[in-house]
Amino acid sequence: MIFKIIKEETKTRARCATVFTKHGTIDTPEFMPVGTQATVKSVTPAMLKEIGTQIILANTYHLYLKPGSKVIKKAGGLHKFCGWDGPILTDSGGFQIFSLKSTKITEEGALFPSIFDGSSHFITPEDSIRIQEELGSDIMMVLDICPAGTASYMHVADAVEITTKWAKRCASYKKSNNLLFGIIQGGIYEDLRLRSAKEITGIDFDGFAIGGLSVGENKADFHRIMSYTSGLMPQNKPRYLMGVGKPSDIVESVAMGIDLFDCVMPTRNARNGQLFTKGGAISIKNARFTENFNPIETGCNCYCCKNFTLSYLNHLYHTHELLYYTLATIHNLQYMHDLMAEMRNAIKENRFSEFRESFYNSTNQDPNEIYRSGI
Amino acid sequence: MIFKIIKEETKTRARCATVFTKHGTIDTPEFMPVGTQATVKSVTPAMLKEIGTQIILANTYHLYLKPGSKVIKKAGGLHKFCGWDGPILTDSGGFQIFSLKSTKITEEGALFPSIFDGSSHFITPEDSIRIQEELGSDIMMVLDICPAGTASYMHVADAVEITTKWAKRCASYKKSNNLLFGIIQGGIYEDLRLRSAKEITGIDFDGFAIGGLSVGENKADFHRIMSYTSGLMPQNKPRYLMGVGKPSDIVESVAMGIDLFDCVMPTRNARNGQLFTKGGAISIKNARFTENFNPIETGCNCYCCKNFTLSYLNHLYHTHELLYYTLATIHNLQYMHDLMAEMRNAIKENRFSEFRESFYNSTNQDPNEIYRSGI
Repeated sequence: MIFKIIKEETKTRARCATVFTKHGTIDTPEFMPVGTQATVKSVTPAMLKEIGTQIILANTYHLYLKPGSKVIKKAGGLHKFCGWDGPILTDSGGFQIFSLKSTKITEEGALFPSIFDGSSHFITPEDSIRIQEELGSDIMMVLDICPAGTASYMHVADAVEITTKWAKRCASYKKSNNLLFGIIQGGIYEDLRLRSAKEITGIDFDGFAIGGLSVGENKADFHRIMSYTSGLMPQNKPRYLMGVGKPSDIVESVAMGIDLFDCVMPTRNARNGQLFTKGGAISIKNARFTENFNPIETGCNCYCCKNFTLSYLNHLYHTHELLYYTLATIHNLQYMHDLMAEMRNAIKENRFSEFRESFYNSTNQDPNEIYRSGI
Repeated sequence: MIFKIIKEETKTRARCATVFTKHGTIDTPEFMPVGTQATVKSVTPAMLKEIGTQIILANTYHLYLKPGSKVIKKAGGLHKFCGWDGPILTDSGGFQIFSLKSTKITEEGALFPSIFDGSSHFITPEDSIRIQEELGSDIMMVLDICPAGTASYMHVADAVEITTKWAKRCASYKKSNNLLFGIIQGGIYEDLRLRSAKEITGIDFDGFAIGGLSVGENKADFHRIMSYTSGLMPQNKPRYLMGVGKPSDIVESVAMGIDLFDCVMPTRNARNGQLFTKGGAISIKNARFTENFNPIETGCNCYCCKNFTLSYLNHLYHTHELLYYTLATIHNLQYMHDLMAEMRNAIKENRFSEFRESFYNSTNQDPNEIYRSGI
């Protein structure tokens, strides 16, 4: 068994489920911290366990280049290499490859430069699966083509066509019992999303993702396409919205039946000084925190909030101390996991709609704007 | 009671003792990790506890400038501020202040620039104690004058004279029941060391430190003066060799009866890629570690060695991942604490001389050179 639905809320499409992998189960909806280079930046696997992380994401593009999937295979796979024994999802590298301007795509594959040294690499859909199998990830993603949110209809139509061809090649190349998820593209065009969803869900993948959102399209398009596309996805398989995102976007997407999320935002913003609270985000740089001896969020049970004050974090930030990154990352990830756990509980108790209301009330702002506050 | 000797080895001056402070006891000989800005760089207090750290050092000079001792006092003291509930020793700032070229010294005090913004500050011996009392440290250090290891006799003689005057002012200003240690100066000149030792040990301090070593003098002078000065220090009070140091220097100094040490080397060198092992230091940058799936040191019980390989550390180092700093620091500090614990056990079992032999044999190199190997 790969997927079991525990509860579907009646007033929205929100649902609570379990995903089964070789390295353990994942209660959904869940947020996956991003560990691009086989580490969630600045935190140890032990800290992730303590925060309640169930699954992390690593990136095929980066690991293929450094240290190379051969090294990781020799190490006994990604889990042994990075010391994380829970589930790992590996992104195929599609997003990274196609966000590089000098990438050249043919039907055969993609020619792309290394971000490390500019050297050229050619990768096919089969290569992508082979690399992910060498990494030994629990959930592999197909190699897809991810156009920018502002791409033309013709450009996106071409991307959809190749994405389907590549998806089929990925599915037939797969040799392991790792899970493999297909990716639905189609940009901001509903007919292309419909076509992509039909073609991709017609292949026997273990789960399905929405790609090509949060890549530069406007907020209204994001909501329209996320909502439309999620409605086209099978009910009995995991649904993953790639690269999303902001807490308010995640709450809306859970309402539309999405199960899995990933985004660099909580970790990256932590390092940049932005800390998440139920009342909105705060900037730790601000002088008003110099003598504030409260934790980031009263009642938060993370190691940071239980032991350190805003004043201390402000000091660490301004003195460029490495401990700042660790503590801030712990808190922002705890915020995300607590949010997801609250949603899971609300769904189980059939009060997700009420939770959604209270989420917006507690932030007391337009949900699309809350993470601009206090910065 | 401030100090209790547990055991004195018979063949050397090495001794095992306990120092009692408001925040707990310290088994000596012990190494104090340096937490200059109220954090041991890149590690949490919980990690320090796990490594076995008994006492950390913080720096009055830095904390006076940022965030200011007033802020830390309002926070409830340094322990609450930084989340470390064990003993803390605060350096007076003497070493930092006198290593800045533009510092101007009068008998009244020192005029020195901020490393953060160049602003001018004037500090007296009384200020230094007042600031350390605001910080609430367990062991305070007197404000002293620390000339470079290459300073002339006349220059060092002047420094000794003012250091004694300031030591008396520090002792009479002290209002708290924090411990206060005097500092013996005198550079590489035995008669000045003798004079300083007589004058400083004539004041009723809770312990005594050797300052002005490892500040540019040659290795022979270091050993000669360390050995000579430690012989001038009271037997019944803690002896602290400031800013030292290399494992081999620590082993030699323990043999001469030193109880406490501090140095940025294990933490700073960890960040620069140098990892300590019983066979000498290694540079994690080296390509030979790319596919080495052993821990830094087999048998080491630190979180890093129990969970991660040289290959992974090499990857983290070369990809500039923040987790590298944390893991490398954990290991190097564990190495130091394990070394100190081995010495304490050897002293208790009256086999310190044998330990000292085996220490040099295991490194299989000139003890003064071992930490240049593999770099």
